[in-house]
Amino acid sequence: MHRLLIASRDGNAYKEHIYQQNLPSLEVVQSIDTIQNADPRGKATILLGDPDLCAQVLNHQSGENIDWVQSTWAGIKPILDTQKTAIKVTGVKGIFGPQMREYVFAYVLHFSRKVEEFRMLQQQHKWSQPKTDSIYGKTIGILGLGSIGMEVAHTAKHFGMQVVGVSRQTNNSPSIDQHYTLQQFSEFAPQLDYLVSLLPHTKETEKVIGKSFISALKPSCILINAGRAQSIDDDALLDALQNQRLKGAVLDVFEQEPLSSSSPLWQMPNVIVTQHTAAVSGVSDITKIFIENYHRYIKNQYLKFQTDWQLGY
Amino acid sequence: MHRLLIASRDGNAYKEHIYQQNLPSLEVVQSIDTIQNADPRGKATILLGDPDLCAQVLNHQSGENIDWVQSTWAGIKPILDTQKTAIKVTGVKGIFGPQMREYVFAYVLHFSRKVEEFRMLQQQHKWSQPKTDSIYGKTIGILGLGSIGMEVAHTAKHFGMQVVGVSRQTNNSPSIDQHYTLQQFSEFAPQLDYLVSLLPHTKETEKVIGKSFISALKPSCILINAGRAQSIDDDALLDALQNQRLKGAVLDVFEQEPLSSSSPLWQMPNVIVTQHTAAVSGVSDITKIFIENYHRYIKNQYLKFQTDWQLGY
Repeated sequence: MHRLLIASRDGNAYKEHIYQQNLPSLEVVQSIDTIQNADPRGKATILLGDPDLCAQVLNHQSGENIDWVQSTWAGIKPILDTQKTAIKVTGVKGIFGPQMREYVFAYVLHFSRKVEEFRMLQQQHKWSQPKTDSIYGKTIGILGLGSIGMEVAHTAKHFGMQVVGVSRQTNNSPSIDQHYTLQQFSEFAPQLDYLVSLLPHTKETEKVIGKSFISALKPSCILINAGRAQSIDDDALLDALQNQRLKGAVLDVFEQEPLSSSSPLWQMPNVIVTQHTAAVSGVSDITKIFIENYHRYIKNQYLKFQTDWQLGY
Repeated sequence: MHRLLIASRDGNAYKEHIYQQNLPSLEVVQSIDTIQNADPRGKATILLGDPDLCAQVLNHQSGENIDWVQSTWAGIKPILDTQKTAIKVTGVKGIFGPQMREYVFAYVLHFSRKVEEFRMLQQQHKWSQPKTDSIYGKTIGILGLGSIGMEVAHTAKHFGMQVVGVSRQTNNSPSIDQHYTLQQFSEFAPQLDYLVSLLPHTKETEKVIGKSFISALKPSCILINAGRAQSIDDDALLDALQNQRLKGAVLDVFEQEPLSSSSPLWQMPNVIVTQHTAAVSGVSDITKIFIENYHRYIKNQYLKFQTDWQLGY
């Protein structure tokens, strides 16, 4: 018998979805949404949950027998930080792509079509027909070319953009016109009309969008961060935005969430705050991944979206 | 010698672009931006211009010898209304597609991603993570499947939407999932999450989006009109919007432009007014079409984008 512990704010929904499946040899021993309720006597062997709660379980008696963790989020850094490298950790991929391409292009087009300017003119009942920009032929840089980044690249290519892809490994997709590594920012950054970061939080990505990277961008560039907050040096970003060395920023992620109501970001005219909603896990999507992985797990097969502890993704 | 009259608000730019080409056997006899300046002694044989000015020229002595009119706009109704059916009229196609797909999806995603709600929360420094909708799997209806409509259909399909195409002729493009005629609105309208009208102004399209059509739409439907204003019955639309029988409307075109500052549309919370800017002709794009057609014209070949006086497009 395999013993499952669910550690998620959506615990009840997960439990229900999993019960409906009648998975063989699986017992749900507990569902918790805070570590205070974790019962060490459960001796769970499988953990399904939100990475921050999962990390607490792994560092707690109730997690001592865990052999496999299925994350409910894309960002698994809290789990990796436990350094329990003997445990199999599986992530979530392939379900955020459509949401992310819609998020990125909602805001790319928000700027190019001057939606805010039209809304202001409308408030004034004023007909003045501002000229809008087409993104056809414009250049977008995408940092991080995993499954999500590639979806964004395909959409950019669909709209006739020039696509600069940035990742460690080379990428031969026809949707990527030019490929660089992060270290080559001084070469690719000056070309960009839009910069989208989808970087995970790893040692290598920490504050990689710093002062010199940002200085290399055109003042007309729009930065969209829907990866992890830690890849941006906030002070450098704020400074560039305040001094019109960057046209605007769309920020989905923040070092501290919820973003404090006293943060200067809320009231900057060229910043859009989207409250970590760019791509949200749906319980049924995540459950599908868990179920497929469970069937692999009980046959001792390699699990889908398994994380490399060394690489951090 | 062919004698060209330019009748456009961008007349100087057209003149310059055309002079640069040194077209054989072509003399630019005049460039006007109002009929008051038209000189009947010019005996122009070719007219290049904005359709409303072209119509005035054709009804004026200065237009008596005109044999071919190249429009600078997509909407050529004013020219057709002159009923000078012996004259060749050529329109503008193929250059509005990229602009229009960006316009339509800027506003489709504006609603689905709740951009306005996020902007309001930001003003309040309030973190509350509203749930957004994905357009993946949602249904969009496209009225008018010319070159512009098909571009919008391809983009909808790229985003994984179900595409309902509406036109007189059947359409077998893989981007169109279901095809209807306008008369079948009671069958297709209830399915739609988004309705995009790109209809030209013809006898058949006049007020076709009327009371019964609008009543057949879901109250959650968003209507986007970037075709011609005359295809919508304004009273029926206003009534539906005021009584929450339609979620919102994005209107680019109006019976009277500029839209009067006293129009109720400006201040309706569920209406977005975009001031006839969805797809704008660039002088250089239009000049390219004119030049290609001029070369065909002097060889007595069939002209590109020539209008059928019967069909009205």
